[in-house]
Parts: sequence; structure tokens; C-alpha cells
Amino acid sequence: MESDDTPMSIGSRLGNQSAERLSGENEDTAEYIQDILAEKIMGSKRVYNGRFLAVDAVDIELPNGHKVVHDVVRHPGAVAIIAFDAQGRVLIVHQYRTALERVTREIPAGKLDVGEEALECAKRELAEETGYRAGEIRYLAPIALAAGYSDEIIHLFMATDLKPGFAQPDEDEFVISEWVALDDLIEDVLDGRLEDSKTVIAILLCDAIGRRL
Amino acid sequence: MESDDTPMSIGSRLGNQSAERLSGENEDTAEYIQDILAEKIMGSKRVYNGRFLAVDAVDIELPNGHKVVHDVVRHPGAVAIIAFDAQGRVLIVHQYRTALERVTREIPAGKLDVGEEALECAKRELAEETGYRAGEIRYLAPIALAAGYSDEIIHLFMATDLKPGFAQPDEDEFVISEWVALDDLIEDVLDGRLEDSKTVIAILLCDAIGRRL
Repeated sequence: MESDDTPMSIGSRLGNQSAERLSGENEDTAEYIQDILAEKIMGSKRVYNGRFLAVDAVDIELPNGHKVVHDVVRHPGAVAIIAFDAQGRVLIVHQYRTALERVTREIPAGKLDVGEEALECAKRELAEETGYRAGEIRYLAPIALAAGYSDEIIHLFMATDLKPGFAQPDEDEFVISEWVALDDLIEDVLDGRLEDSKTVIAILLCDAIGRRL
Repeated sequence: MESDDTPMSIGSRLGNQSAERLSGENEDTAEYIQDILAEKIMGSKRVYNGRFLAVDAVDIELPNGHKVVHDVVRHPGAVAIIAFDAQGRVLIVHQYRTALERVTREIPAGKLDVGEEALECAKRELAEETGYRAGEIRYLAPIALAAGYSDEIIHLFMATDLKPGFAQPDEDEFVISEWVALDDLIEDVLDGRLEDSKTVIAILLCDAIGRRL
């Protein structure tokens, strides 16, 4: 059963729209800030189309009238799931990352299929990657992973009431799962020993939520 | 004066190396996991070289012997600075992001220049973007922003004891600064209204550190 709380309803309405609200200001000020910072998009060209990555060179006009090109990684969007067992431990996957040339510890995650809802994708990815089916799953937050050069939004979920099952990773996907106490992960984050951004956010978010319950 | 605490010394030693420690396991198990997950890099080709972004297509051999190509965004690394005033408010910059086609709220950040130390870069970027000079600056953590396709590591710093000065943004850089109470930002994160990953991490990290003091 998924609980339909505020961020969830934000998330499903979101699509490609903004999660941003300009805090502290009234609507007029927020709109004013939008207006004076806005770039004009004049055109866009696909400059790379790999199996895993597409890059567009986007022609824009800056607020000062200068015309420049910004490179943007196009991404279908993704989900990541922080899954808890009955003892409050977190499901962590060890995974080799080509970009970093090392193994990282991450929460399960994956890309949205075309037309797929974030919630469906979260259930699917968790089950495929680790075998676990979530009895309860809750939307946490939409995160822009690398706003400087990527349009990727990753939707964070929290899963509980897990039932074990058979993992069915992609043929070329290699992960090793491990249960780790949340407190140990928080210590790792505080000591700068856990580097994956979505994983750090999910851990700290659950810590913050837990302390406010 | 910068305080030379553990993460700081980790950070300066780091360079391009790993912040990861495989938690819970002894050294042998950690090494074993590294070994069985490791990919072999067979070659690499620069497939795009834009002004803001470079992409390599990396030929790898997976643990099952399959040969595949992974796309990797090459990035010089970056810093981000969460700066506090005497009232505990956080310095937030409003900034238009081409990739997202909207204004986001972020902490000040910027790329490392060639050969530049992360600490020097943090001081420089804070001063250039906002005018503020940090009397005290402390290393928080290294974060892999988008480990799935980018080698970017962003070094998070906390700055206090700020002195105002003249901002000197790049000619084509447009930001609007604002001081926001940390508690308001935490509420925004918990409500899914703040989307920039490095900003969310810095806010939650300072919240977690504050609660442990």
C-alpha cells in the first residue's frame, strides 16, 4: 500500500516541471526573479547519441543578450529506493562504476522506462536488482542530480515491509547486496566515506524524518 | 583559519581516489567484493568535446566477459560552499539552469581550475559569486554527483565568519543571492521543494552535524 502524502502528489504531478518554490518571497518577487534570470532558448542540436547518454548543445541567449552554447546531458529520469528491514537496516548494493573506476555503495536505483510512472519503476527496480518486493512504498523527494549539465531528475522512495524474492538483474548488471544499520551509514556520511549523492540524500533524509517523528 | 579535521585531511589526500570504505566487512571481504565486481578498461575514445562538457566512450570488459561501451562525462571536479551568517542563516543563490529550463536555489559552487586545490577554489568561488570572504572554512565531504555517468566529485565546504565584499561573477554568470533560515531550507527539503542535489546534501549534513553537537 502506498501512502499518498504531499511529496507523492507533488511527484506525480511533477513530470518535467519544477519542484522549486522560491522561498521567503511572495509570488511577485519569485516571478520577478524568474524573469530577470531567465535564458532564451534559441535552438538545440543533438551532438552525441550513445547507448547510455545523449548530449545536446543548446543555443541560448543570456540575460545580458550574449549568445552562448550550453551542453546538456539528456536523461529519461530515474528512481532510487531506500529500503528498510524490520530492524531498521538499509539495503545497500555494491556496484562498479565505470566513471569512477571503483566500487561504490548505493541504494538500488534505475532509469525510468518510456512512459513508466516513477512509483512503478521504483517497485520494479527494487525487485529486479535485489529480489525484494516492497509492501509499503512512500515518495520522499525529486532531486536534480547534476543541474549544471544534466536534466536528470531522480525520484527518491522509501520502501518498507519487504518480502524476499528472486533478483533478476539485467544480464550485464552486477551488484552485491548488503544490509547495513542506518546509524553506521550516517556515520559514514558524516565522516565523508560515502560518496554517492542519491544515497547520501536518502540516508540523511530518513535520519531527518526519523528525528522529527 | 581552516580547521584541519578528519574529512578535510581525507579530502586533501583524495585527489581522484576513492572516499569509499566497504562498511561492515573486514579488509579481505572488501577486497574480494572489489575483485569480483571490477570491470576491465580496454580503451577510451573522446566522443564529444564541448566548451562545458567532454564525453568519453569507454570500452570495458564486464565480470562475465562481455565487452560493452559505457559513456562517461569527464569533469574537472567542483566545490560547493554552505555559508552561514551569525544568525545561522544560509547563503542561497538563485540561478537559471539550462538543463532544467528553470531557476533553482543552490549553494554557491564552481569548477576547479587546473591544478587548483579544493579549499582555494571554495574561497575563490564564494568570493566571486557572492562577495563574501570566509573567515573560517571547513571540509564536509566529497560527493560523487552522478556516479552512473559522470566522474565529477564535488567537495562540500562549510563557511562561517563571513565578511562582505564585492562580488565578481563571470561576465556570463547571473545569480541573485538571498539569506534563508536553515530550518526553512530543511522544511523545503522534507517537503520535496528543493531539488539541487549538492544543496540538499549540504543542508541535511549541517542539520545532522548540528544535532550531534
